[in-house]
Amino acid sequence: MKVAIIGVGLIGGSMALVLRQKLNDISIIGVDANQAHQQTALNLGLVDEIAELDIAVEKSDLIILAVPVDVALKLLPKVLEKVNNKVVMDVGSTKVEVAALAKGLANAGRFVSTHPMWGTEFSGPTAAVDGAFLDKAVVICDKHTTDEDALLLVEHIYKLLGMHIVYMHSGAHDLHAAYISHISHITSFALANTVLEKEKEDDAIFELASGGFESTVRLAKSNAAMWVPIFMQNKENVLDVLNEHISQLKKFKSCLEKENVEYMAELIQKANTINRILK
Amino acid sequence: MKVAIIGVGLIGGSMALVLRQKLNDISIIGVDANQAHQQTALNLGLVDEIAELDIAVEKSDLIILAVPVDVALKLLPKVLEKVNNKVVMDVGSTKVEVAALAKGLANAGRFVSTHPMWGTEFSGPTAAVDGAFLDKAVVICDKHTTDEDALLLVEHIYKLLGMHIVYMHSGAHDLHAAYISHISHITSFALANTVLEKEKEDDAIFELASGGFESTVRLAKSNAAMWVPIFMQNKENVLDVLNEHISQLKKFKSCLEKENVEYMAELIQKANTINRILK
Repeated sequence: MKVAIIGVGLIGGSMALVLRQKLNDISIIGVDANQAHQQTALNLGLVDEIAELDIAVEKSDLIILAVPVDVALKLLPKVLEKVNNKVVMDVGSTKVEVAALAKGLANAGRFVSTHPMWGTEFSGPTAAVDGAFLDKAVVICDKHTTDEDALLLVEHIYKLLGMHIVYMHSGAHDLHAAYISHISHITSFALANTVLEKEKEDDAIFELASGGFESTVRLAKSNAAMWVPIFMQNKENVLDVLNEHISQLKKFKSCLEKENVEYMAELIQKANTINRILK
Repeated sequence: MKVAIIGVGLIGGSMALVLRQKLNDISIIGVDANQAHQQTALNLGLVDEIAELDIAVEKSDLIILAVPVDVALKLLPKVLEKVNNKVVMDVGSTKVEVAALAKGLANAGRFVSTHPMWGTEFSGPTAAVDGAFLDKAVVICDKHTTDEDALLLVEHIYKLLGMHIVYMHSGAHDLHAAYISHISHITSFALANTVLEKEKEDDAIFELASGGFESTVRLAKSNAAMWVPIFMQNKENVLDVLNEHISQLKKFKSCLEKENVEYMAELIQKANTINRILK
């Protein structure tokens, strides 16, 4: 099978690594706007060749769009118009806008909208991880809008990656993603900025930061080019959950101001119940 | 050496585990208000015997107060009044209140105020971890107020645990701890409550939550009995940093509302610089 991976970064690169091991006859063409990333992807053996978008699409059976969600919106029309019987999938963290766009395009049935729930805070081809995706969930959105053979191929790919498939409407996906993924990133970015703003002694952070701080602030290393368009595309849901988060923080603030020990203990005990829904 | 560990939980229990391996002649007496924890500590071999506080103090050379910071304030006077030439150390996450208390007590020079910068979100004797503390920092506060031999013994203990020692005034400690540790916990508790409040579909969280969410919300499993008194004792610093955190979150909110893509990218790029001060 010939696969074009558009965007040979964290997700595209990790998919390349795993698919190569699972499929003997695979040949991967990489497309990347960043020349340094092109070379790195070749050097790391993630792709067999680098090509321009048009040529890569023409030569491939499956085209994986693994670019930031704003770039995906720009590329999808160009890819779909030349797609014929090929299959196109995206892997973006927001699904409503891409679904709305795809709906009006020719060959819309060849497009499968997906979101594998795996990632790290790193980016670029060097961030690719062998064994990524395994045992995680992947969301496939609006499967009723895709051709059956396209859906089957994408399901096959995700099974090769060891993922379990969850089907959802785009709208439900974006709502859940705001709660579970997008707000965590905003929290972490804001926490990093809080500490950078308030703590003037870098040495103290460096010396004293323990596992707890590092864990909470880990996502703050994530890439702006990826995350700004995600937040913007999922603006309404993210605003809704961000407002709730600010109001939850204000409850802690009020407990402190009033020295309301009982209510603070209640808030913490409620938070502890998150345990039951974590793996 | 005879050591009394008051509070055989996450910290006290982990110290017991490591000290046992490092000191051949050690004998550890456990004191714990929780009867189930007493038995577990014996069963796990963390302690050689369980005793009442008075008896444990009387029989020991070193008394380690490893209880929540509010309980430490209650126990410290009782322990210090009987301490003679023995050494008492605490391990609490706030240092100003305990320093103010100790100052007015008899035998204040026998007390060494410390905070080992290690922990997990779990509690109780079963949370004790072999190899805890290694290569982490421990803060020793206000060392000028302690007797030289007491300080030397406590430094020796922390070197056995493999920690590097940082000396600080209590006030500086509590300020840094608010930035680096306490705010992370509030953020994580509030994030858990946000998701619990907004996300009515437990199954969706369970299915979709990926490493990012789990990492940010990990600390939300932490114990109220430990954390409420920490927040209360460090109220002014925590409020100060919590206000800043809320205002940082509001910047993200405003970026979303105004679709200010450039400023949001700036905020994220600033947050990315946290990388330089993390290990």
